[in-house]
Amino acid sequence: MKAEIITIGDEILIGQIVDTNSAFIATELNKIGVSVYQITSVQDDKTHILKAFEAAEKQVDIVIITGGLGPTKDDITKTTLAQYFDDTLVYDEAVLKNIKYLWEHFVKQPLLQVNIDQSLVLSKATALMNKSGSAPGMWLEKNNTIFISLPGVPYEMKGLMNDEVLPRISEKFDRPFILHKTLLTYGLGESVIADRIKDWEAALPESIKLAYLPNLGRVRLRLSSTGFDKAAITAGVDAQVSALLPLINDVFVGFEEQSSIEQIIGNQLVKHGKTLAVAESCTGGKIAENITAHPGASAYFKGGLVAYSTAIKIDVLKVDSELIASNSVVSLEVAEAMAQNVKTLFNSDYGIATTGNAGPSKGDSDEEIGTVCIAIATPDGVFSQQFNFGKQRLRVVQKAVTMAFTLFQKEIFKKC
Amino acid sequence: MKAEIITIGDEILIGQIVDTNSAFIATELNKIGVSVYQITSVQDDKTHILKAFEAAEKQVDIVIITGGLGPTKDDITKTTLAQYFDDTLVYDEAVLKNIKYLWEHFVKQPLLQVNIDQSLVLSKATALMNKSGSAPGMWLEKNNTIFISLPGVPYEMKGLMNDEVLPRISEKFDRPFILHKTLLTYGLGESVIADRIKDWEAALPESIKLAYLPNLGRVRLRLSSTGFDKAAITAGVDAQVSALLPLINDVFVGFEEQSSIEQIIGNQLVKHGKTLAVAESCTGGKIAENITAHPGASAYFKGGLVAYSTAIKIDVLKVDSELIASNSVVSLEVAEAMAQNVKTLFNSDYGIATTGNAGPSKGDSDEEIGTVCIAIATPDGVFSQQFNFGKQRLRVVQKAVTMAFTLFQKEIFKKC
Repeated sequence: MKAEIITIGDEILIGQIVDTNSAFIATELNKIGVSVYQITSVQDDKTHILKAFEAAEKQVDIVIITGGLGPTKDDITKTTLAQYFDDTLVYDEAVLKNIKYLWEHFVKQPLLQVNIDQSLVLSKATALMNKSGSAPGMWLEKNNTIFISLPGVPYEMKGLMNDEVLPRISEKFDRPFILHKTLLTYGLGESVIADRIKDWEAALPESIKLAYLPNLGRVRLRLSSTGFDKAAITAGVDAQVSALLPLINDVFVGFEEQSSIEQIIGNQLVKHGKTLAVAESCTGGKIAENITAHPGASAYFKGGLVAYSTAIKIDVLKVDSELIASNSVVSLEVAEAMAQNVKTLFNSDYGIATTGNAGPSKGDSDEEIGTVCIAIATPDGVFSQQFNFGKQRLRVVQKAVTMAFTLFQKEIFKKC
Repeated sequence: MKAEIITIGDEILIGQIVDTNSAFIATELNKIGVSVYQITSVQDDKTHILKAFEAAEKQVDIVIITGGLGPTKDDITKTTLAQYFDDTLVYDEAVLKNIKYLWEHFVKQPLLQVNIDQSLVLSKATALMNKSGSAPGMWLEKNNTIFISLPGVPYEMKGLMNDEVLPRISEKFDRPFILHKTLLTYGLGESVIADRIKDWEAALPESIKLAYLPNLGRVRLRLSSTGFDKAAITAGVDAQVSALLPLINDVFVGFEEQSSIEQIIGNQLVKHGKTLAVAESCTGGKIAENITAHPGASAYFKGGLVAYSTAIKIDVLKVDSELIASNSVVSLEVAEAMAQNVKTLFNSDYGIATTGNAGPSKGDSDEEIGTVCIAIATPDGVFSQQFNFGKQRLRVVQKAVTMAFTLFQKEIFKKC
């Protein structure tokens, strides 16, 4: 069971948008046992799209196409599909009814002919109802390959995948079980990890594939296996994980599929009825944003202070100006005061603080660019650590966020 | 001048990572006049990679390959390239010297044989020095097509693109000028805009291409044109923009290539010596994070408060508990108090505040999920507006952030 994802749109090929649709579709297909063989992004150009359809039909069982279904003239996916299937477009009554409903209740703008024309589908297609927009999905078959056309707007595509595409694929095909298990590690390079686990890796059975994914101070180790016997696949991977864990115990943080590090932290805090507040300087709100991206954060996250300037650290966070003057605003002492004071200010059990120079130019401190101090205040005290995360602003910030979560996670799993 | 980007790695095809490299590469290539014809993501599989190389060689002038260059066994790009070019791998002295330098000064872990082997390159290749990592880039030529192999780690790839790849392409080829100009609009659907500007669109010359990019309450209109006469291309697009602007004046926010809306706001504040602070409930730090993602934010951004819980709104932000009790924590009244109080607390000229229910379950308020109140405090007073952004958490948050910037931008361009 192999699939290809074809994303259509010049905006992808000129780099104006990052294609996030493909990762979502690939993840969801994997969950139901369909492997993605290739992802192909092509221009809004009829010849190019037809060429991609032909190539895909030869190499996969399912082709999922996104994009190019809008009501404006630059969108040509539907007419191109009609040409590929030697078909004509016909109005679909149910789709038109849905469009009229959406326009009346949500869009509240005049229904134009181009909106009505959105209900045109290939006569050979099964229309897939789009609850969030006017462009219907379509399900088509040709020489044993299924073509599924979806809108490119992410939330419309996601709705159609969940409501229509995944259930239909699941019903139509016998599919194997695909298991990925990813171990998050922090603190060692991939070559050192590879060297450490080389005997284990050499003894891995053929049926289990190992991948190393290094990025910004973390290395993820992914074990993948596929087959029709779900119990055997799971037991096989679990046995390998059990053998691997003792070898990387000092750098292992958690499993990625289970949850992100923010969720692992959140679950632990909720379990023990503890709360958290954050004081961010160089990370600028990104720690808070990562935490609040997950539903249920309000159960343990009291809030945060983005103390971007020195004045705010003094005036709002009540960090002693003498302490700043004598140690520099980027220092372990100031980070610790920030963590303790935000814990007091927000009346939380724990506090996390960051202060650093993300660059490109030095801010209120003379510390070297890339220097970041991170402090964790706990019910028992406070500790801190200094890092240098290099010279690229966004990378410094992301590494600081990752490290803050890592330090905090180690702390609460020890103590709480 | 056409290019294809081939990204290699199972992590992309199982949806574990979003491919952000391709958008960066495409943007940079466009800037020097190279169009990207196709982006193809393939598995860590020799047969599949070879097939992608062959297909690319037939259809483009430049093939940029990312990924699969790590020191571990799952990375096979280099040996596959050697097979494709019927070549052998040889040690490159300069690359080895660079690796030794990096290990001594930054990695500070033992230099293993696998690290030394990273200095192996194809004998037919020009090695491209990677200042941030052990995997060198390679520049190869075959039948008038250039193959460039780069590491998949984003900051290493970016360094190599800027330092080596773009200058070499610029030197080797005569390239046309590619111009994209994108107008950001807020408040109208794409079909209504298309209807409004249809006469203008119908009269567009063949040489200028128009695209509509709708997403989360914004529609971007992109005009693109390519040719060797830069002055003529620029004048042609500018003339069309001038004719278009009066038709969409009420919904036009700014030009995307010039800067993001946060930067437009930042520039305006700096110009007038004004400062900003933000109080975020449902947006959870994302407004602050967007602002601080840009260097120079400290010139106008004093900081922010993530007032996630009602208690923090009362205790830290000093919102009157009576006001909350009588109006609900998600209300225009509370949003306005938050905006004014954060302005006072941070001693800034402007304050932005958000309070809402992002879902999936209701928080401290009975307001419907998706309800968001946004308030802007100015030196002259405060105003606010209520929205419903639907039921999907991350979408609600993103729409609220976009709307907050939009409201604020309209205000400061009017007043400041």
